Amino acid sequence: MFFKLLHQDSECPARRGCLELNHGTVHTPAFMPVGTNATVKAVNLTDLEGMNINLILSNTYHLYLRPGIEVIANSGGLHRFMAWPHNILTDSGGFQVFSLTSFLKVEEEGVAFRSHIDGSSHKLTPEKIIDLQTTFGSDILMPLDVCTPQQITREKALIALQLTSRWAERSLRHWQEHSDSGKLFGIIQGNFFEDLRRRSAQELLAMDFPGYAIGGLSVGEPFTLFKDLLEFTAGLIPEKYPRYIMGIGTPEYILEAVEKGIDIFDCVFPTRTARNAQAFTRLGPLSLKKETNRLDNRPIDPDCSCSTCRKYTRAYLRHLFKAKEILAAMLTTHHNLYFLNNLLLLIRESITKESFREFKKDFLNTYISKEKP
Amino acid sequence: MFFKLLHQDSECPARRGCLELNHGTVHTPAFMPVGTNATVKAVNLTDLEGMNINLILSNTYHLYLRPGIEVIANSGGLHRFMAWPHNILTDSGGFQVFSLTSFLKVEEEGVAFRSHIDGSSHKLTPEKIIDLQTTFGSDILMPLDVCTPQQITREKALIALQLTSRWAERSLRHWQEHSDSGKLFGIIQGNFFEDLRRRSAQELLAMDFPGYAIGGLSVGEPFTLFKDLLEFTAGLIPEKYPRYIMGIGTPEYILEAVEKGIDIFDCVFPTRTARNAQAFTRLGPLSLKKETNRLDNRPIDPDCSCSTCRKYTRAYLRHLFKAKEILAAMLTTHHNLYFLNNLLLLIRESITKESFREFKKDFLNTYISKEKP
Repeated sequence: MFFKLLHQDSECPARRGCLELNHGTVHTPAFMPVGTNATVKAVNLTDLEGMNINLILSNTYHLYLRPGIEVIANSGGLHRFMAWPHNILTDSGGFQVFSLTSFLKVEEEGVAFRSHIDGSSHKLTPEKIIDLQTTFGSDILMPLDVCTPQQITREKALIALQLTSRWAERSLRHWQEHSDSGKLFGIIQGNFFEDLRRRSAQELLAMDFPGYAIGGLSVGEPFTLFKDLLEFTAGLIPEKYPRYIMGIGTPEYILEAVEKGIDIFDCVFPTRTARNAQAFTRLGPLSLKKETNRLDNRPIDPDCSCSTCRKYTRAYLRHLFKAKEILAAMLTTHHNLYFLNNLLLLIRESITKESFREFKKDFLNTYISKEKP
Repeated sequence: MFFKLLHQDSECPARRGCLELNHGTVHTPAFMPVGTNATVKAVNLTDLEGMNINLILSNTYHLYLRPGIEVIANSGGLHRFMAWPHNILTDSGGFQVFSLTSFLKVEEEGVAFRSHIDGSSHKLTPEKIIDLQTTFGSDILMPLDVCTPQQITREKALIALQLTSRWAERSLRHWQEHSDSGKLFGIIQGNFFEDLRRRSAQELLAMDFPGYAIGGLSVGEPFTLFKDLLEFTAGLIPEKYPRYIMGIGTPEYILEAVEKGIDIFDCVFPTRTARNAQAFTRLGPLSLKKETNRLDNRPIDPDCSCSTCRKYTRAYLRHLFKAKEILAAMLTTHHNLYFLNNLLLLIRESITKESFREFKKDFLNTYISKEKP
């Protein structure tokens, strides 16, 4: 088994484990920084190595359009192209095709659309999506799925789910016949209908993918709805499979997902928000552009031991953001990824010590307190 | 003496030396990267430390306007503000006042102008410029000077020169009375008139500054005119003083300046050009955005041992520039500074070995050859 369960919490579904992937062992629960265009924005990947991060996500849709598969194939795959010798999960492109493109046409065969970059016409099938990720050399691959918005009818959600299942089957067959490496995950859809979530899970579990992702959550719905449906859906996936939820990247959401038994998650939040001058601290988010930081010689977070907090003050970072300096994004992105990675380290420790729920409560008490960061 | 002459070439004025400054010994000839807003754009300063660069330039005018002297004073000076424990030369702000501002008024007392950032009104005097740099804690300070454009009349150039001399005298007196650290350089002006250059040099040399800068060159004039006037002006500065020329940052200009006996120079060129996808190579500049790099798996320069060249291909860098990724600027800036710093290392070695002129000829033969990089 490539997924090993190391410790199961006795009070809740939270668990520690590890994924034995082609480019090293990943300890879970793990947060994956997002490297959309074959780069995690504003960081040098040696920085991530220094944090012992060894699994990042990259986007199939973006890489397919630019630089294009010929360039990545010519360089010997995605790892060599971006000089990242550790693990890469590539997504299916489904989410981007359904949210970024124009003139979208969904057919049994696949999807046709126009590029958000230059308007050029493209057609992608489940088989082609597997081929792309095989050429990338992805360590975890995702199959093409149908992504649906909130508040559609049950009927439409059912049609989307059924097509997702048929595409999943074609993807799995194509992967088994043509790919000799990486792990392909199934993606459970079903919109916000519990019975459809169950149906999707049943159909995909029958295919026995190496792991399972939960799609279509954290798309703008209220936190309580997210929590309930995450708990429900995660509970449908047997313990032996690694569980992945997409688009989770704040301490609150991560702690919630871990409690529901999720093993891996990704989100652009920590990196995007850093470029917008928002930094994580133990006392909640800090807005670095604010006037209050002008003469503040404290680091972003006095308890953080990242290289940004060891060397730079809030006053300096505010100045860099005001002057629109690239270093502002570099230093703040480094901090946010370090902070989140450190949170995951503490989470894994607390699971081993059977104190996860206590840790979660304490962390959130401080994080959402009235005290200012 | 804070400037030590270590070796004088026997064939030309080129020389090796060192500057004993408050934050360490700087080996000359040396190139200073420019950190306009208290950051060398797109690099982490630990990168510069890794290259043994220990002298950078920062801009008094920019720092005075943003973040403002209160912020820098509050952090304990410029070194602590930007977390750079090595040397900093700050310019006089003259060049920026004369080229960036609006509603400029030059009077005996000083200059009045409106900020290029927000249009606010300001007045700066020679004394105030010294005070600002004293608060920064600059290792080398420059006095306020009058910068004149090309092709003005001799009469106007003379008036500017005379005012520059009077301001220099006030600056020197104020610095001697109020500052207890750093070295103040005189700036020789005189536009493109040899007799005015001589007059400016005589007036300033009589004041016995710790070092001398040559202002008003490399402002768009033909290369031959630059060479001739540089040789003429540098020849007016006795051997015992360190010589500094502003705004020099290409291999051709640097080699020329070294040959004329210049010790330090600065320019935004290597960093700005990097952000515009232009990289130095031994075979001349390489334009990374070009289609020819699309499938090129070679590094920028196969002979370069910087971390960018050791890890990344032209194909990848081209992709990063096309996708407007911050990492493109980060990796290319690192390479350009490394390349230039390495050139200075080789220049210093060749001077010691009495082979500078041969080195210059060989380097330029390859650099401007017809062979493509």
